[in-house]
Amino acid sequence: MRLIRPNVEALEPYVPGEQPQEAGWIKLNTNENPFIAPAIAEAVAKAASDALRLYPDPLCRDLRRRLAERYHVPPEQIICGNGSDELLTLAVRVAAGEGDRIAFPTPSYSLYETLAQIQNALAVAVPLGPGWELPVEALAAAGARLTFVANPNAPTGTAYPLDQIEMLAQRVDGLLVVDEAYVDFGGETALPLLDRYEHVLVLRTMSKAFGLAGVRLGYGFGSRRVIEALYKVKDSYNVDRLTQVAGLAALDCYELAMANNRAIAARRERVAQVLQERFGWRVWPSRANFLLVDTAPRPAREIYEGLKQRRILVRYFQRPRIEQCLRITIGSESDMAALVEALEGMLR
Amino acid sequence: MRLIRPNVEALEPYVPGEQPQEAGWIKLNTNENPFIAPAIAEAVAKAASDALRLYPDPLCRDLRRRLAERYHVPPEQIICGNGSDELLTLAVRVAAGEGDRIAFPTPSYSLYETLAQIQNALAVAVPLGPGWELPVEALAAAGARLTFVANPNAPTGTAYPLDQIEMLAQRVDGLLVVDEAYVDFGGETALPLLDRYEHVLVLRTMSKAFGLAGVRLGYGFGSRRVIEALYKVKDSYNVDRLTQVAGLAALDCYELAMANNRAIAARRERVAQVLQERFGWRVWPSRANFLLVDTAPRPAREIYEGLKQRRILVRYFQRPRIEQCLRITIGSESDMAALVEALEGMLR
Repeated sequence: MRLIRPNVEALEPYVPGEQPQEAGWIKLNTNENPFIAPAIAEAVAKAASDALRLYPDPLCRDLRRRLAERYHVPPEQIICGNGSDELLTLAVRVAAGEGDRIAFPTPSYSLYETLAQIQNALAVAVPLGPGWELPVEALAAAGARLTFVANPNAPTGTAYPLDQIEMLAQRVDGLLVVDEAYVDFGGETALPLLDRYEHVLVLRTMSKAFGLAGVRLGYGFGSRRVIEALYKVKDSYNVDRLTQVAGLAALDCYELAMANNRAIAARRERVAQVLQERFGWRVWPSRANFLLVDTAPRPAREIYEGLKQRRILVRYFQRPRIEQCLRITIGSESDMAALVEALEGMLR
Repeated sequence: MRLIRPNVEALEPYVPGEQPQEAGWIKLNTNENPFIAPAIAEAVAKAASDALRLYPDPLCRDLRRRLAERYHVPPEQIICGNGSDELLTLAVRVAAGEGDRIAFPTPSYSLYETLAQIQNALAVAVPLGPGWELPVEALAAAGARLTFVANPNAPTGTAYPLDQIEMLAQRVDGLLVVDEAYVDFGGETALPLLDRYEHVLVLRTMSKAFGLAGVRLGYGFGSRRVIEALYKVKDSYNVDRLTQVAGLAALDCYELAMANNRAIAARRERVAQVLQERFGWRVWPSRANFLLVDTAPRPAREIYEGLKQRRILVRYFQRPRIEQCLRITIGSESDMAALVEALEGMLR
């Protein structure tokens, strides 16, 4: 009996970073923010009441009204999701059928390829340049129904200027998803393109910039046409009650979160310098809350494993072009001091 | 530019029941439970801490361990979802590609048809019998890659005995999803079939039986093969931290929840009798937490609107075979007293 679609049966699943649930780890492997505004947990605790027995607002109206004020995009052009991962999934289901092409740069967020395979679409992975430059022409030439670009890119940290994203928007012939999960650490947003390009969808998440990875809240900004299609495809009650409350509370703490993110960006630059100077590592320029570092001459896996023994988790990918690299999240000052101390113990 | 797949562009979206977010409504329209164990909100409030900045366990290991104990199914055969709606979506994406057949009885949960259309699969709606009997032979003859059966069925409330579900399992040639959202109000579970049929997937939700509609937590029980495929397709962090906490707390209150559900079932029988005797309505036998009633000779829409004016919401569908019916959730004693009083005001 054919129980499972062949493309799903053949799929190598996307492997998320390790998430040890016990205490005692320094987690620098999944780009969580070391800071979360205390008012968010307070608001959620207060909202944990008998009202949990009632369905949430399927349209997240309060939250979208507040997002509209913050980002100057009308509520009708906003959709909320169970993390921006859900919105990536919805974008695929809206724009690309079986056999359609889905293009994305590589190395980038490897979920894009997994989502294409789940949909039985044709994944077109276009290599980034030698310094991780965006391959605008090659992406446009892919003839894709759907193109994903992460800006800043993960795991490289590379930021692309708005004019490159706009050039891509002018050349692609289908939906262009600009995944701005890391934009608040120094990237340039594509939101100004919404007025001019019906086919641009900008995705954000509260996981990184607001420290809400455990809550799962993403949002998308796009044209009415694209947003309406995403609404048709989403599960009715995709964002639960407490997540909506957490999102509202996070927006109340917007300035606090952004001040923290600026501090993280400054720390990133200091850590980059230390890693370069003290260990001779190559550190790629980053506008995200992580650094991609080349640990040559020592194998990246060896460093990853040595750190893990010391209860510090970083991300090791074992993928082409970055198999000699680690991705290191910028955590708190003490997290980064512990990292450097551990590396000195291992490398000196 | 083709931005949206034609099947999505053409889609009439699934319309969930009204969810007024302001107080003052008696909600008997979306089968929420009037009772939620107070310990659940307490556990959630306690868990709302700085830990929200960390990703949840992508595998819901603690929760699945507890579900395994409760339902006597190994954790490897359990998956958790963002409501059972997400698991329905995942089942479609795992089992049926474009043009494949997806069969389901009608009238039933109308999301099944919507999900088939989103996938660009071929929806095969098989009419229930005149007393809402399960059309086992016709469903099996549909040649579907995926068959959905809700047991008890919604919106009719009809319960099907296990031997009918097993007969269907023996005849279908593809994945059989038994949607047991309402089973805890008096239905018979298909869990005993898991040992014998690799292609049976049993779905549950905490929305109805545990009063957690606002939390979004569903779970599925199936063979290792099917569960593994669902894991490949789900978003990594589909169940957030607080939802996992709520689920654990709900299982701690299992006996309390089931005692409440027995009380709801008894109340359902009393309300059915009142509606029949006092208003002469036809009330279909139900094993769920709602009643399907035929309001003849008065139009169902008129009753729906009259109740809405009195701040009581019930469900009116405007769909073939049930356009003369309302679906009424069994709420608290005072909810039901208010309903009967309102109906007396309208009908006498």
